[in-house]
Amino acid sequence: MLTKNKIKLIHSLDQKKNRKITGIFVAEGEKLIFDLFESKIKITDIYCTKEVASVIPKNNTDIIIEIVSKEDLSRISFLKTTPEIVALCRIPENLPNWDAIKRDLTIVLDDIQDPGNLGTIVRLADWFGIKNIICSEGCADLYNPKVIQSTMGAFARVNVNYLSLQQFLGEAKQYELPVYGTFLEGENLYTTDLTSKGLIVMGNEGNGISDSLDGLISRKINIPSYPGGEITSESLNVAIATAVICSEFRRRIICKG
Amino acid sequence: MLTKNKIKLIHSLDQKKNRKITGIFVAEGEKLIFDLFESKIKITDIYCTKEVASVIPKNNTDIIIEIVSKEDLSRISFLKTTPEIVALCRIPENLPNWDAIKRDLTIVLDDIQDPGNLGTIVRLADWFGIKNIICSEGCADLYNPKVIQSTMGAFARVNVNYLSLQQFLGEAKQYELPVYGTFLEGENLYTTDLTSKGLIVMGNEGNGISDSLDGLISRKINIPSYPGGEITSESLNVAIATAVICSEFRRRIICKG
Repeated sequence: MLTKNKIKLIHSLDQKKNRKITGIFVAEGEKLIFDLFESKIKITDIYCTKEVASVIPKNNTDIIIEIVSKEDLSRISFLKTTPEIVALCRIPENLPNWDAIKRDLTIVLDDIQDPGNLGTIVRLADWFGIKNIICSEGCADLYNPKVIQSTMGAFARVNVNYLSLQQFLGEAKQYELPVYGTFLEGENLYTTDLTSKGLIVMGNEGNGISDSLDGLISRKINIPSYPGGEITSESLNVAIATAVICSEFRRRIICKG
Repeated sequence: MLTKNKIKLIHSLDQKKNRKITGIFVAEGEKLIFDLFESKIKITDIYCTKEVASVIPKNNTDIIIEIVSKEDLSRISFLKTTPEIVALCRIPENLPNWDAIKRDLTIVLDDIQDPGNLGTIVRLADWFGIKNIICSEGCADLYNPKVIQSTMGAFARVNVNYLSLQQFLGEAKQYELPVYGTFLEGENLYTTDLTSKGLIVMGNEGNGISDSLDGLISRKINIPSYPGGEITSESLNVAIATAVICSEFRRRIICKG
């Protein structure tokens, strides 16, 4: 049985400040958690039904597994439909992987506010083989239970770090990486040269890329609307724009190879 | 002042069945509604503050304009932040525009459940100059207040029709349009031939394209993950996939021209 204190602790992980204090976040559901067993994410505690406990791979000896009732699970779950398993996981260290960043594509998010957009971007980064995402400190928090679930496990394969973008882009200068950013006056994404490594900066939903970062963008690009010149939506949703850009970067490599 | 009955009527438009009975939906906010003045969407009633009323273009003589307090607006608004203007609009006729469909790209949505996905798809269709979207009858409803707002005005420039897809795709046969659909075993989107007209069928979030439509898809395509062969997310969000596909169709034309 789950103690009241434990339930209270898990509930409190809905709040960023409590995740920060404890260094712990919540992941839910069989599909997601069984993926984590194969990943670099460290699970500390599992609460699950007897049936699910019996199929947990035996090599996970350092995880505390507590068998609880479906009723108890409904008390700790953040989901609408109660899962058979809930896990507490350790938030990974917040260190950018420069070794990978300097030789591949990296997404840089400038104050993405909407948790749904962040989750979608992590999932599509995983699809397009982008292993690193740098978030400004003003971005939505990846470890929010809703964001974690919405990435559908992608968060375990993509490093997400929270940093001052000024500082990050400053440090990145030594590697002479092109820094892409979308601007209305940018070059046509489809016809401009694209490199196989570099940083892709995506701006806030309402305000785009911060003025303070403007000088750090070396390659201004633009997704052209079609057929051009007509009245259309003023912008694309940021997750959609990120997908179109990442797709085009990868297409160039796929079509060359 | 707004009568209780009027407030009750507007509230009831949150429900699809009430929108169906009345043929009316709600749009909110200056930016959105002023865009509608220029569109084919017919506004019947406006509730707004004195300030906003004074800037409504004078040629809108067939609209009933009622000046109300900000407090009254907060009573009828579905938004978190009360807007200065709320409009009631007529749901357009549900007739597919075959003249346009037979010579351009059309998006066909098979049971897209999530209102957010639908809103995002309408907005990106507008960006990529796709003027027609056909929704199966099981799709989320465009005229839900949340979806209308999330399209950011794009709904006024894109025709969205709700039809039986079996029947629609059956009728479309006479125009010999290619019918694209995404399947794991489909051809690589980036390297396969793409036509400048045709139907792009996108499947339900969980189940993909219905088995019953399978035989009506003439061109199976696939968005390749990168670098391929690695474990990655199992799928892309349906709005993301739609964006990547539409972008690639339009890129072919832009790069040729």
